[in-house]
Amino acid sequence: MAGADHLKLLGTKQSMFTYRVVWALKLKGIEYEFIEEDLFNKSSLLLQSNPIHKKVPVLVHAGKPISESRLILEYIDETWKERPMLPEDPLERAHMRFWASFVDDKLMEASRKAFASSGEDQAKATELTAEALKFLEEEIGGKKFFGGEEMGFLDIMMGWFAYWFPFIEEVGGFKVMDPTKFPCITAWTNNFLQVPIVHQNLPQPDELRNVFLGFRSFLLSAHKDH
Amino acid sequence: MAGADHLKLLGTKQSMFTYRVVWALKLKGIEYEFIEEDLFNKSSLLLQSNPIHKKVPVLVHAGKPISESRLILEYIDETWKERPMLPEDPLERAHMRFWASFVDDKLMEASRKAFASSGEDQAKATELTAEALKFLEEEIGGKKFFGGEEMGFLDIMMGWFAYWFPFIEEVGGFKVMDPTKFPCITAWTNNFLQVPIVHQNLPQPDELRNVFLGFRSFLLSAHKDH
Repeated sequence: MAGADHLKLLGTKQSMFTYRVVWALKLKGIEYEFIEEDLFNKSSLLLQSNPIHKKVPVLVHAGKPISESRLILEYIDETWKERPMLPEDPLERAHMRFWASFVDDKLMEASRKAFASSGEDQAKATELTAEALKFLEEEIGGKKFFGGEEMGFLDIMMGWFAYWFPFIEEVGGFKVMDPTKFPCITAWTNNFLQVPIVHQNLPQPDELRNVFLGFRSFLLSAHKDH
Repeated sequence: MAGADHLKLLGTKQSMFTYRVVWALKLKGIEYEFIEEDLFNKSSLLLQSNPIHKKVPVLVHAGKPISESRLILEYIDETWKERPMLPEDPLERAHMRFWASFVDDKLMEASRKAFASSGEDQAKATELTAEALKFLEEEIGGKKFFGGEEMGFLDIMMGWFAYWFPFIEEVGGFKVMDPTKFPCITAWTNNFLQVPIVHQNLPQPDELRNVFLGFRSFLLSAHKDH
């Protein structure tokens, strides 16, 4: 297991992508040093480590950077084998990766649009978000976690939905989640937030709300100028 | 090794995503049955196998479907270990996956926009395509293939660029590729197209041109009505 001097995580304390990596490292019991990035004044370490996208999170392992949360999770799972996040069977792995891409490309993308818009555009994006969520409602069904009895790769990829999404709805002024329409996703959200390493590693609600308030105000004013 | 009765590839003979899977299967020497899909009249097997996206390619292995070309390649590499496409080292694997995402999200996305637009929008998208390609020019440098001496995962993910991109430029009416600006990518294109299993598995130029002509005409007329 790598010591803190070997493993650095560059992230922010509100970033849903950063927390994916935090939860994965905590799940595996791996020590690391967290380096808080100011996205308005990015460190030279971040710019050197991820010169293409210049985004957090970046995991720096023995001086070598890995970026993009999905790829960092795969890297962690391949490097530290104990408590695997992905199942062993190639077909099940493909299945989990498929839904992880769906979460990022469909659910997150639609909710991002709902958050960044208003009026008719927002109504359309809200509907798309609900449609994407419906697929995930069917996928989880009566299971405790997406992977079964234990939190795994897809749960971690979807984790932002359990905690960040209510703030996205509140600040964005739209509503998708409804326990009567999405009983399985509601149950999953509760199960996920009760996992100790998740529960103990979440941003402060006020800080998160403020970040989203600032972000929404920026997006809507940018839109107006357009 | 699976017999033809076990492995079915649902695809089209012009689809750049389908050929990724063809090349991977050929590279591994795996027999399969190719099932040509008519995208205007999709088979019930396709609709059942990929109910979410309803897209090709889909690999059906012993009755179980796997979709999305990137995930199919990972599945193939994990299921048939001989002649690996991804390197063994987790850091190198992350590196290849990073660039594969870059190819899809940046290079392909920008060239898709250039193809689907005209005028000022097309000029902007052309510039973005060239910017993305510049990063790949630096990444490949003097290497024969992205993975080194042998064709691997990233070469296959980037393969559409070697053969499809000239048609995209021609039909789209824009120009990015220039051997003097991109000497390393030019050399890679030649190396890639000389690999026998690539050379022997490519669509007919006329058919490909016709597909793109129809597609561009549809896109521009849809744009005009907007």
